[in-house]
Amino acid sequence: MSGLHGVDRTGREFDRMWGELAPVGRGRDGGYRRFAWTREDATLREWFTAEATRRGLTLVTDRAGNQWAWWGDPDTDGPGVVTGSHVDSVPSGGAYDGPLGVVSALLAVDVLRANGWTPSRPIGIASFADEEGARFGVACAGSRLLTGALPPGRALSLTDENGITMAEAMRAAGHEPDHVDGDAEALSRVATFVELHVEQGRGLVDLGEPVGVASMIWPHGRWRVTLAGQANHAGTTPLPDRLDPMLTLATLITAVRASALRHGALATVGKVSVEPNGVNAIPSQVTAWLDCRAADEEAVRHVLDDLSTFGPVQESWTPATVFDTDLATRLSDAASEGEPVPVLGTGAGHDAGVLSTAGIPTAMLFVRNPTGVSHSPEEFAERADCLDGVHALTRCLAELTR
Amino acid sequence: MSGLHGVDRTGREFDRMWGELAPVGRGRDGGYRRFAWTREDATLREWFTAEATRRGLTLVTDRAGNQWAWWGDPDTDGPGVVTGSHVDSVPSGGAYDGPLGVVSALLAVDVLRANGWTPSRPIGIASFADEEGARFGVACAGSRLLTGALPPGRALSLTDENGITMAEAMRAAGHEPDHVDGDAEALSRVATFVELHVEQGRGLVDLGEPVGVASMIWPHGRWRVTLAGQANHAGTTPLPDRLDPMLTLATLITAVRASALRHGALATVGKVSVEPNGVNAIPSQVTAWLDCRAADEEAVRHVLDDLSTFGPVQESWTPATVFDTDLATRLSDAASEGEPVPVLGTGAGHDAGVLSTAGIPTAMLFVRNPTGVSHSPEEFAERADCLDGVHALTRCLAELTR
Repeated sequence: MSGLHGVDRTGREFDRMWGELAPVGRGRDGGYRRFAWTREDATLREWFTAEATRRGLTLVTDRAGNQWAWWGDPDTDGPGVVTGSHVDSVPSGGAYDGPLGVVSALLAVDVLRANGWTPSRPIGIASFADEEGARFGVACAGSRLLTGALPPGRALSLTDENGITMAEAMRAAGHEPDHVDGDAEALSRVATFVELHVEQGRGLVDLGEPVGVASMIWPHGRWRVTLAGQANHAGTTPLPDRLDPMLTLATLITAVRASALRHGALATVGKVSVEPNGVNAIPSQVTAWLDCRAADEEAVRHVLDDLSTFGPVQESWTPATVFDTDLATRLSDAASEGEPVPVLGTGAGHDAGVLSTAGIPTAMLFVRNPTGVSHSPEEFAERADCLDGVHALTRCLAELTR
Repeated sequence: MSGLHGVDRTGREFDRMWGELAPVGRGRDGGYRRFAWTREDATLREWFTAEATRRGLTLVTDRAGNQWAWWGDPDTDGPGVVTGSHVDSVPSGGAYDGPLGVVSALLAVDVLRANGWTPSRPIGIASFADEEGARFGVACAGSRLLTGALPPGRALSLTDENGITMAEAMRAAGHEPDHVDGDAEALSRVATFVELHVEQGRGLVDLGEPVGVASMIWPHGRWRVTLAGQANHAGTTPLPDRLDPMLTLATLITAVRASALRHGALATVGKVSVEPNGVNAIPSQVTAWLDCRAADEEAVRHVLDDLSTFGPVQESWTPATVFDTDLATRLSDAASEGEPVPVLGTGAGHDAGVLSTAGIPTAMLFVRNPTGVSHSPEEFAERADCLDGVHALTRCLAELTR
């Protein structure tokens, strides 16, 4: 499409929606806690429903709990082009990871309509459930349930740190867990998926570009390491009599970093749980979680081999996701009125990767992150770059619905 | 007193009270979570009140929130002999640490009365608040508030892991925090204090004795170490760009053990808090707590010197507590009908240490712990040894109220 009208209005609408989302789940440190199937999550779902309704879009919640807002009817007019992301967060997460993709999707539809665009096929906006996996430990749970990559029995029996199962959490939030399953019908409505996301690195900053297109997602996984000890009184148990798993944790953390350096991978111990976690109690058990990724799978395997003595148990594994190359090239050309936007890889997992693995032609747009910081209250994108992202997404949707 | 009547009845009463306490705050692993000013704590306070009432004892709650049950009136008949302990626990703690002293105190009064004993001075039973400091981080908070060792302003502003202050927790539990203060009047009623406690070590096992008397409590303290990092995405942040405080934690844990070994001290990192504690988030901050003790203060100071680069902040410090030597000898003779019971030191802090430091002649009785394990669901004492403890305590109270 030539020319974009209503730029001022897009900015105002961006500010309105961003302002509405800003207080939901915000902590004292400015970070967000928007875990799946919580009160905060319910507030965000209601917000998405309201935004779909004010635009006259048709709202559908699939069996996995993902929300879809359709412009046009994919059941009569054939599968559509879907864009969107998620609204949940990691603990103390940033404002942009997820919501930027949902807000940009809504705004892109607004801009297309303001320009009188008649899409050749339906356009859908998706808001995926539980992308971060912060509460139940499995990332992209909503999209994985949808595609069948995550069996419902396994998902529903996952527990949060208070021992609440996903089934219980869904029921409390009004989503019936008995109906949770892969949803081939919902998936069949998606001809193409495009996810816009704040970049979680400094690729675009280094290139001096506000928007880029993803080439691939690194292979990545999560492992749980359980270190057993014997609880005892810290003030009375002689050192030689102790089975203190905190010492093993120290060895593990050190080994993880050394191995990652050796093999050119990223490996992180970001989560630890200590039992009973008392100042004057030798722990009975320490559980640590390992996140490991690399540009190639071989490097991740080498790290896990190095750590085999700690008995890591795999919680999730996602092979490399190479996005549709033709689609990436097409959108790289379409996203800008000038030169094609850069195409670059990322270490972060996304629902887009899950849909791509399920065989759906998929692409991602990244919006520049001036510090590269993500999963942190300091995560940020300039407003002008966010609006550039909206317009790049709008051009991509127009290209895909010519 | 010569001869002890009602031994069967004492066993039955022990079983009754032990059975009533057993379910309160018991977790799935069999460990107890009985934190100060919680619902569990309220249940235990009601239980103590009921036990005092059924015996016709006069119940007083002091300004610090400690409970006292008096046989006789210390305000008219002069200060009395007090025995007792506490009913709160560490996280996933044992059944014996604390409750054994309170139950034994009630039973000792029962036995004295069953034998028609007329004490020369009032006898009191104390149940101290918040001995473990598991919720707000300061051990012996109830007895320290009582004696003035812990200023009320500092205590009331302590927060638990949910950010709830002690003042808020007390108010929710129905204890008015505005009245919390040192309580010289309550303290003036105590002429002598005797605390019975399960041993938290294997001193008595090694000696083949069911009961012993304490000589001293090692100097001990708690320190908080805050390790700063920068939150970021674990999947996208290059290793050289990371400020990952988990690596510093590993160094700290290793240094703590090495230093303890070097100086002959006990030093433990038993509690860790990670922010935000997400699998795919580099932590913004890790907080670790250090418990350090030794037979002599010099050794503790050497450990802290070794750790100075980590910036440990002292949360509490208790110098060596040497119990009244004459009293220990007297009770060692009185506790048994045969040979004097052994006198031995301990690394564990107790309310008895706080009262001793406040100038009150104080003694402790220990009951054999077959494994030495404490602060753990595995903490245990044989029923026969518990009853031996009751009778030793009864003889000591008789000796002190001849």
